[in-house]
Amino acid sequence: MTNEAVLDNAARARAAAGALASATIADRNKALLLMAEKIEAEEAALLEANKKDLEQAKTMLAEGAITDAALSRLKLDEAKIKSIADGIRQVAALEDPLGKVTLATELDQDLLLERITCPLGVIAVIFESRPDALPQIVSLAIKTGNAVLLKGGREAEHSNKLLFDLLQAALKTAGLPEESLALMTSREDVAAILKAEAFVDLIIPRGSNSLVRHIQENTRIPVLGHADGICHMYLHEDADRAMATDLVVDAKTQYPSACNALETLLIHESLLASHLPSIVSALLAKGVELRLDETSFASLNQKDSNIGKAVDEDWDTEYCDLLLSIKAVSSLDEAIDHINRHGSGHTDCLVSADAEAFEQFFRRVNSAGVYHNVSTRFADGFRYGFGAEVGIATGKLHPRGPVGLEGIVTYKYKLTGKGQTVQEYSGSRQFTHRRLV
Amino acid sequence: MTNEAVLDNAARARAAAGALASATIADRNKALLLMAEKIEAEEAALLEANKKDLEQAKTMLAEGAITDAALSRLKLDEAKIKSIADGIRQVAALEDPLGKVTLATELDQDLLLERITCPLGVIAVIFESRPDALPQIVSLAIKTGNAVLLKGGREAEHSNKLLFDLLQAALKTAGLPEESLALMTSREDVAAILKAEAFVDLIIPRGSNSLVRHIQENTRIPVLGHADGICHMYLHEDADRAMATDLVVDAKTQYPSACNALETLLIHESLLASHLPSIVSALLAKGVELRLDETSFASLNQKDSNIGKAVDEDWDTEYCDLLLSIKAVSSLDEAIDHINRHGSGHTDCLVSADAEAFEQFFRRVNSAGVYHNVSTRFADGFRYGFGAEVGIATGKLHPRGPVGLEGIVTYKYKLTGKGQTVQEYSGSRQFTHRRLV
Repeated sequence: MTNEAVLDNAARARAAAGALASATIADRNKALLLMAEKIEAEEAALLEANKKDLEQAKTMLAEGAITDAALSRLKLDEAKIKSIADGIRQVAALEDPLGKVTLATELDQDLLLERITCPLGVIAVIFESRPDALPQIVSLAIKTGNAVLLKGGREAEHSNKLLFDLLQAALKTAGLPEESLALMTSREDVAAILKAEAFVDLIIPRGSNSLVRHIQENTRIPVLGHADGICHMYLHEDADRAMATDLVVDAKTQYPSACNALETLLIHESLLASHLPSIVSALLAKGVELRLDETSFASLNQKDSNIGKAVDEDWDTEYCDLLLSIKAVSSLDEAIDHINRHGSGHTDCLVSADAEAFEQFFRRVNSAGVYHNVSTRFADGFRYGFGAEVGIATGKLHPRGPVGLEGIVTYKYKLTGKGQTVQEYSGSRQFTHRRLV
Repeated sequence: MTNEAVLDNAARARAAAGALASATIADRNKALLLMAEKIEAEEAALLEANKKDLEQAKTMLAEGAITDAALSRLKLDEAKIKSIADGIRQVAALEDPLGKVTLATELDQDLLLERITCPLGVIAVIFESRPDALPQIVSLAIKTGNAVLLKGGREAEHSNKLLFDLLQAALKTAGLPEESLALMTSREDVAAILKAEAFVDLIIPRGSNSLVRHIQENTRIPVLGHADGICHMYLHEDADRAMATDLVVDAKTQYPSACNALETLLIHESLLASHLPSIVSALLAKGVELRLDETSFASLNQKDSNIGKAVDEDWDTEYCDLLLSIKAVSSLDEAIDHINRHGSGHTDCLVSADAEAFEQFFRRVNSAGVYHNVSTRFADGFRYGFGAEVGIATGKLHPRGPVGLEGIVTYKYKLTGKGQTVQEYSGSRQFTHRRLV
């Protein structure tokens, strides 16, 4: 697509967003339910289109253009198609995120201030492989009244195209502007989107750290998401050994390539003899390679080809693999400092029975998720009860953490009066500022 | 100050922010009340310091280095010092913005998710002249548990230095880390702050449009605020003439240099004969220069040296002066389109008795403030009942509109469990997702 064509799509999406913002929740939900229907009805055609992508992908795999993981994420089957349709219906079942009054103050008699949730406008989502990402993103966007520009991976070209056509057709049948959805495919399209400040309100990159970093560094449009997910677990001196072992194993091995997987284990030095050996054994049994700092390494009698020494870079590395760095610390403060210095602000956990220690940990760890005695893998929109997520934000401003519907709506201040001027209030007249909501 | 010194200040502020985040509301309020006391106690010294600045400023004025407006904003007197102290006490009286549970969901038995408000960390504020801006910013920062780097204008050097020393001394007396406050003065310091991504979470520029634009374009740190404030008022066909006249005059003339002042008046063509003449007369009487589009210009019989024709640039210009552009439109839609195309997303108002027309106007105007029958000049943190404001944000993401305490806090997700793993939930075990708050 030419830059002009992309900007054209974006401009039409911006225009369509106005109509979408005025659509009722009934209309938006109707569109979502039609989308789910169409996807189930076209199962055969979807499998066919996906087959084409899989054949293409096998060649790309042979050329080393994509990974095994990407290939497996690409595959659609009956079960996945069913779960895509169910996912859309779940989003339809969620309450309307728009038009909520989040603040109401009577500034004076007949002068009412309200803060009301509304759509952002136009969202651009850039995602790789997984075709099921497309309907998930579209359902969240339509539910929130946002137009969305989609850029899928070339490897999922046929699947994405058909999914997109089905969703757009459903949108049209529901009487909503079809131009609120646009699909792009080439790398050049991304470059054009990054410059479309006039039409795009938010960019959501879903893919490799390098993709996210590239986007963050090449646009002035707000970017939702994160490059690195360097999550920590700190075992405080009173940590229960069995619990600690279960949590470390789950956080590291349950899905190692996830951004909420554990990358660095911090352990109080008093636990090196009592806890570390069994934790290390459990991890080795799961095929995890370990990189230990001097102290923890020296404390281990176990020798194993998968036990090595850590170097400085390890503390700042997201492995996305069966690899874990381990560091002994002498105090809660040292653990907190390490996390704030080397972490990525994603999710960090304290394992301890000490409520006061957790209070300190919670107040001082600067991450979107601060956990107590639970696996970091819980950092996820579905698990949080958000229905689904468009991504996980590690910045400090809203939206932060797993981002569901609430994260892709904003608000406007509505002030309704009877002709009041500010001049009236520059003299004796006082505001009442009576908080109603 | 050298770059190293600035980064050093920033690093120490980051460290101090940890302790500040753990301070109780009692400690933070104690510091604020001590600040107010000190400022009143040192009135004489403050007037003395301010006198030095005023003398310096007179020379700068002669050299054209600053404006008359800047000079008048610079002046402190007994009344202003009293109001500064009162302002700090008002902030102390506001409820604690930290530790609020804004969401609580029981994911499962003994697995509680909470979203809790917390400080951002380190805020950098760059402001010009007005020395009373410094204590206002510091009081909001300390109330929200944020460390703050301050960069004042050279013209207020002596006043700022003394105010800063008094506030920092009060902070220390209250037992809070004095390094949570740092003062910078040179232009070079700003350049260093813009690069301090590792230590600064938010930059708040308070000053000229060019200052704000320069900062927005030269940092990757989130910037709160806005360059332009191009506010509109649209008089719909049923607008009451008297109300419309009062609102237009107030919005344009009550304080023309404010960002929430009116810059463009949109008027339905059916009102050109009935309403425009009296509105024009009222504006001329206030010394306002008018720039009209062809249609509205042609409709006027009045001839006056202050009535001229508008050119295209006028629709995109913030005059910050007794200047107003006027455009005739044929419909509500045309007005909305003009506002979304030429506005700055600040504050726009509809004057009409028609509730349905306002519903459309509210849904479709993409601005932080969408008003009905009230002056745009109400867009202000104090008038909104926020106690004070650090600025007004015209972006679409939070914080948006006038930004008070709520806008400079963020949140963390707290997940507390009893050792639950995600693996347990990958099988038959279901989440309850029982919403508590």
